Order: sequence, then C-alpha cells, then structure tokens
Amino acid sequence: MTVKRKLRLGAVIHGVGSSVSAWRHPEIQSDASINFSYYQGQARKAEEGKFDFVFIADGLFINEKAIPHFLNRFEPVTLLSSLAAITSNIGLVGTLSTSYSEPFTVARQFASLDHISGGRAGWNVVTSPGEGAASNFNKGAHPDHSTRYEIAEEYLEVAKGLWDSWEDDAFVRDKESGVFFDPEKLHRLNHKGKHFSVAGPLNIARSKQGHPIVFQAGSSDSGKNLAAKTADAVFTGHETLEEAKRFYADVKRRAAEYGRSPDSVLIFPGIGPIVGRTAEEAERKYEETANLGSIEDALQYLGRFFDHHDFTQYPLDEPFPELGELGSNGFRSTTDRIKAKAKEHNLTLRQVAIRSTTPRGDFIGTPEQVADRIQEWFEAGAADGFIIGSNVPNGLNDFVELVVPILQERGLYRTEYEHDTLRGNLGLSFPVNRYAKQPVASGGSESAKR
Amino acid sequence: MTVKRKLRLGAVIHGVGSSVSAWRHPEIQSDASINFSYYQGQARKAEEGKFDFVFIADGLFINEKAIPHFLNRFEPVTLLSSLAAITSNIGLVGTLSTSYSEPFTVARQFASLDHISGGRAGWNVVTSPGEGAASNFNKGAHPDHSTRYEIAEEYLEVAKGLWDSWEDDAFVRDKESGVFFDPEKLHRLNHKGKHFSVAGPLNIARSKQGHPIVFQAGSSDSGKNLAAKTADAVFTGHETLEEAKRFYADVKRRAAEYGRSPDSVLIFPGIGPIVGRTAEEAERKYEETANLGSIEDALQYLGRFFDHHDFTQYPLDEPFPELGELGSNGFRSTTDRIKAKAKEHNLTLRQVAIRSTTPRGDFIGTPEQVADRIQEWFEAGAADGFIIGSNVPNGLNDFVELVVPILQERGLYRTEYEHDTLRGNLGLSFPVNRYAKQPVASGGSESAKR
Repeated sequence: MTVKRKLRLGAVIHGVGSSVSAWRHPEIQSDASINFSYYQGQARKAEEGKFDFVFIADGLFINEKAIPHFLNRFEPVTLLSSLAAITSNIGLVGTLSTSYSEPFTVARQFASLDHISGGRAGWNVVTSPGEGAASNFNKGAHPDHSTRYEIAEEYLEVAKGLWDSWEDDAFVRDKESGVFFDPEKLHRLNHKGKHFSVAGPLNIARSKQGHPIVFQAGSSDSGKNLAAKTADAVFTGHETLEEAKRFYADVKRRAAEYGRSPDSVLIFPGIGPIVGRTAEEAERKYEETANLGSIEDALQYLGRFFDHHDFTQYPLDEPFPELGELGSNGFRSTTDRIKAKAKEHNLTLRQVAIRSTTPRGDFIGTPEQVADRIQEWFEAGAADGFIIGSNVPNGLNDFVELVVPILQERGLYRTEYEHDTLRGNLGLSFPVNRYAKQPVASGGSESAKR
Repeated sequence: MTVKRKLRLGAVIHGVGSSVSAWRHPEIQSDASINFSYYQGQARKAEEGKFDFVFIADGLFINEKAIPHFLNRFEPVTLLSSLAAITSNIGLVGTLSTSYSEPFTVARQFASLDHISGGRAGWNVVTSPGEGAASNFNKGAHPDHSTRYEIAEEYLEVAKGLWDSWEDDAFVRDKESGVFFDPEKLHRLNHKGKHFSVAGPLNIARSKQGHPIVFQAGSSDSGKNLAAKTADAVFTGHETLEEAKRFYADVKRRAAEYGRSPDSVLIFPGIGPIVGRTAEEAERKYEETANLGSIEDALQYLGRFFDHHDFTQYPLDEPFPELGELGSNGFRSTTDRIKAKAKEHNLTLRQVAIRSTTPRGDFIGTPEQVADRIQEWFEAGAADGFIIGSNVPNGLNDFVELVVPILQERGLYRTEYEHDTLRGNLGLSFPVNRYAKQPVASGGSESAKR
C-alpha cells in the first residue's frame, strides 16, 4: 500500500495581509498588526484547519510609504513564543535575519521556542535585502548580496552546531548518584570561521525536533543554493504554474547535487486565495478591497518599483505602457513580473496599479475553483504545500471553512495532525546529533516521531 | 488621609533556585529549569499571591561546575513572552545583557512583550560580568568593567529613544480619510554615539507603559550610578539589615543628585525565605536541601570563590580558617561577605561550605517570623520590596500561602492589583514621550493609570 503524498499548509498571519489599503475595509481590524488577540484568533483558526504552521514575516526598518501595518508590528520571536502557550499542534515559524543578529542568541531563542512549544519551532532565515537595516544596527555598511549569503551559510553552520551542543540524552538527572549530566555528551563547538567565532556550548538542551525547522526565502541563485544545501523548506512566490514548476525542479535538483534527498527540502509557494460562494462574489471581494485606496496613491505606489516613475502621464484605461528598460533596479524580478503579467492578461494601467497595491493572483473563485488550482499546482510538481496569505477580510477563515474541507474530501490533506512536532507533520527526518556515537536511525518521517 | 506605603514583591522563578543540589530533593522536579509547565505553575502561583512581577535571570555562557540547572535554561525573552499569554496581571521581568546584543532588537523585543502582555514588561539591564560570554559572541574581547557601564548607559539612551519613535497617539487609523498615522508624531532618533549608531524609528508603536520598566542589578559604583540615573528599580542582595540600609540610602541619594525623585527608583533586595510551620521545621527544610550534596563537593564549590583554594586541608567542624588576602580576585564582594558572615556567626568550615552551595539567609522561620523580618527591613528603610527566590522545595508556594496573608493582614501588602500595568502597580509615573508637544501630566502613580 502506498501512502498518498499529502499537501502541507502554512498561514502568514501578519496583520491584514499584503494589501496597502485593506485596513480601511469596514470589516477589517485596523490595528490587527499589533493586536495580540487578533493573532491568537488567526493561529487558532489555522490550527482548526490542521495547518502545519503559522508564519510571521519581518522587516528591520521602516519605509514610511510601504504597507501601513508594516510600520507597526510585533517582533517575531516574542510573538511566536506567546502563541506557543495558547496553541498545541501548529508549527510556529518566524523570520530572523542572519545579517543583523548573533548566532548564539538566535540559536538559543529558537531552541527555547522549540522546548516551550514541545517541538513546533521554525526559523525563516533571511539575509535582509534592504539597505535601510544597516542604519539601525552597528555593523557598518550593509553587506552586498553574495557576502550576505556567505554570512548566512556560516551562521547556519554555527547555529546547527550549537543545537548539537548536548546529545539528546545528555541530561541524566540521577538524584541518587548526583549525576546531573553526562560530560561525555556535552560538546563544545569551538567554531572559528571567516565571519563568526563561537565557542559554545549552548546553555540549553537539544530540543524535541533536534533542530528547529529551517526555512529559506531567497529566490536568487545564492538563495536557492543555501536552501538546497541547508534548509528544510522554502518559502517562495510565483505568478504562473510554469514558473513555479521550474523553481521547484531547480531547487530539488540542487538538493540532489548536495547529496540530499529531494524530499528533504519542501517547496511552499505563497498564495493569497480569495474565496467567494460564487466566482462573482470572489471578484467582488477583491475589487472591494483593492479599490479602498485612491488611484493616485496606487500609481505612486506602482512607481516605487520603477525608480519613482510618474505614471500619471499615461491614460488609465488603456493597455499598460511600454517602459523599455525602466525598472531594472533593485526590484528587477518584481518589475519583470509586472510587465509579463500585464502583457499576458492584456491589463490596463489602472488594473496593474491596483494589483500592485492589492495582490490578486490566480487563486480566486469558488471554493472548488481554488481547491482545483491548488490541486493542479500540487500534482504538477510545483509545490509540496502552500503558504496562505490573506489580503481580503476573513481570508484565512474563508479558506479554512470553505476550501480545507474540499481538500480533505479529495484525500489531499490531513483531517488530523499525524505528529506532535512540526518536523513530524512535515514528514521530515530527525537530524542525528553530529557527535552521537550511536546515531538515531534517520531517513523518513518515522524517525521524527520521537 | 495618607495612603500607607505598600510593599512590593517579585519572584525569581528560575528552575529550582540557587542551591547546587536542590534538584536531588525527592520533592523537586529535576528538569524544572527547562519545563515550561513548571514556569507556568510558578507564574500563576506568584500571580495568585498578587506579586508585582516574576523575574527571569540569565547567563551567556556555561560554567560546568556551576549550579546544574544553569546549564540548561530558557532564554528569557522567549520564556516571558510565553508566560504573557497565560497570565493577566503579573509583571514579566527578564535579564538581557547590553554587552552582547543590539539595542534595536532588544528595544523591539521588550516593546513587543509590553504590547503582548498589555503593559507588563520589564528589562533587567546587566553588563555580563563573566569573560566567558565573549567566547560565544563576535564582539572581540570582553569589555572591561567601566567600558561595559559606558556601553550600558549609551545603550539605554538608544533604547529609550527608540521607544519614543512614535508618540502615544501617532496611529490614527482613520478609515474614512485613509490616514494611518500622523507623520508629525513619528520621530527618527538618528543616534550617533561612541558605541552605537542607530537611526530608527522603531517599527512598533509606543507601548502601554510608554517604556517597559528598567531594572538594574549591579552593585558597584558604576552600577549604582547607572541605576540612580536611568533605572526604575534595582535588584540587589545583602547579608545584613545595616548593609541593605546603607545601599538603599546610597542609591536614593544618587538618584536625587541626578535630579530624580528618590521614589522613582525602587530598591528590591533578593531574599530566599524558608518557611516552616515551626522554626524547627524551617531549619529542618534548610538542612534537608543543603545536605543533599557531599561535603567534598561543597568544599570544592566554596574553593571556586577563593582561587580554587584547597579547603580539604582544614578540620571541618572548627571555626572557618583565617585566609588573609586569599579571595581578592573577581569574587571580592562574595568572599568578603563569606568571611564577615563566618566571623559574625562563628561558623565552622562545614557550615560555610554548605551555605555556599545552598543560600540560607536570615529570612527563615515561622510565617510570622519571616513576615516580621520583611516588615523590619521594609520599615527600616532597607527595601521598597523584595524579590523572592526559592531554594527549598515549594518555597514560593509556602511563601504565597503562609506569609502573604500575614503581610496583607498587617496592611503592608495589596489584596488586589491596583492597576493593569507593572508600572501602575509599582506606583511609577508614566514617561512622557520626549517629542510630545502636549505632554501627558507626569509624577505620581496616577499618570500610570492610562
């Protein structure tokens, strides 16, 4: 009997999603990004939907013109730790940058979160793209792209080394003999590398997952290599199925080249489903949210990606203008996507501007239509699962209540948690401690059941 | 009508206290330091006792010969955040070092904790005495004592500046007009100092307490000055009432010299009450816990404070030996205290060794005796409150159940929380935002009610 491959789901529960004006919607809590009870509700809803994890994104500086609720957000480690205490099965994944932090502290914080949550911690490793971060920290100039990835790789080596400081059974705590720990099972890392010198050991026991789950979110070559070499999961984003399939195959191939099983790195495209009882209702929901801001603001917002280009010079309801090389700055992949999408769907300037402030995507329609699209991507080899973002009111609730039951009915998705750890639910194997003399059997999800 | 000055209480709830061998006691949970449900229970018990706060200590490296459960502990920010979700009135105070962290991150984390907990966050600022920390971080050599305090002072300036990035009413969130925040009420710090360059603004709104409560725990001249200049509260430790009174008067005098009201910095000696239904039962409890380890281990442990001096050469049951200048190293204040205490109480070497592994202190006896001693210190001007540590099984429970009711009956201690913030309960005034044009009225606890 072969077990059918199961879809996995995560939920980005930051504030009110990626829409610039959604906070103005009458049904949306405008202080959501800083309201702990909002996050509690979202996390519990995702757990009700048997999601593998919730996901907290982050940023290290403010762009005043950006999405308003990014100006005012919780720090991910604190937020996830709080959510750990009021949830019991769902994974807790958060972004933390390797460019502006110390591996000893971060390894400790995620290990603590893993202990507190009973094996549900995940860390989304990012390198901080924006230069703005440098001005808030004391590390000199913002490192360039390739240096950032070099730092990230060494950082992860250190963190994983620190997580192995104590073997799984190092703490004996024998009251009779007075032996608290077995000194043979304590290991000092003594890392001395190009960017970090960290002696260790970590002052916390190895956690239930061995290592917290490592996510990676970069889509450059360096990002894909880092993911293929060291990550358990990748958070990515694609406009089309073809693009997603290419990315999926590419990362899996690179993993194999690093000697890893392609199943040991899971690919999660982020999507923003918009569900209506009818297709028209779904479209209406999108339009309602997308048009909360003025078209002038939308044009200005769009201009940010194109070197602050003035889009007011073009007619609004004619096809998106030819821009030549404009937009080949730091947002290259975004502007390429905008141009391609405009051409493919024959969009007007108005439509493009509005879509830049409120993502629309192709996961829109009735619950069946959204489930069909998810199934299509999943079965076509474009995804091992999805990270659901919510850009319209009640987005996550609608998804859990209307789409999840269809995915369950089709046998694509769990009806109950299989394990009590995130690692177990994701079907990832338990990482054997590098120092263990009698290694725990590895490979396959069985070993994650411990 | 004058309101009687009220005693405040905190509880150190780390693991199983400061006894080296307490974990071997049959009634003690030997994995307490890493068991979240243990911490939940302790925090709830302290809240039941109407404590102002729980307190989580920390360390940044491991000394294998130290108190065993310090080898394996939660990182304070994660632990406190988790406790925020399952408590509702008690303050959440944790240690974090200014020598090995970034002010932007730490200001964010404590601000997040303050938001999540609804105004209950506190930060115990330390500078990390031990050199071992340097080997786990990437900041070069461990800074010397005066540099560490110089760094700490600038660090606090930066953190407090970041906490003022947004005025209290900066986030307007007017759905009608589309104004999310008032740009006049957003302020960039642009700090450029000797040790830190931090532009800001912080990416989180000002929290309910304005600034989280700042504790300071150093007892050197630099430590006392930092406390007097910048802290809301001091965590200290004294062997005698006279010493405690001197310290109390000293810090309050220094605060006045910095132009602050002496009431704006509260002094909390740490004590480890041991309560029995009779005085003999209390003594028996102490002896039971203190004698769980061998005398050989105790002698070796004592030796650590005296340059690893070999104490096995002296008779055990005769007066503590004359050691001359031995012990004038980094533990000077500890060794001076040990010597003075031995002379004052005419202790034997055995007694001194055992007391070095399990603190005894003078807060031991029946509930009335312990309450008497607390009242004596409080009324003599040695303390504004106490931080209760627990070195014997059920120490906190006994204190809450047996001593707290006596303090309440005597009108010394609250029977219900007065406020919903730590700041309010401590009676500290609300810090006006440095940029506010129409400052909130300050001074006195009234203003903390907001």
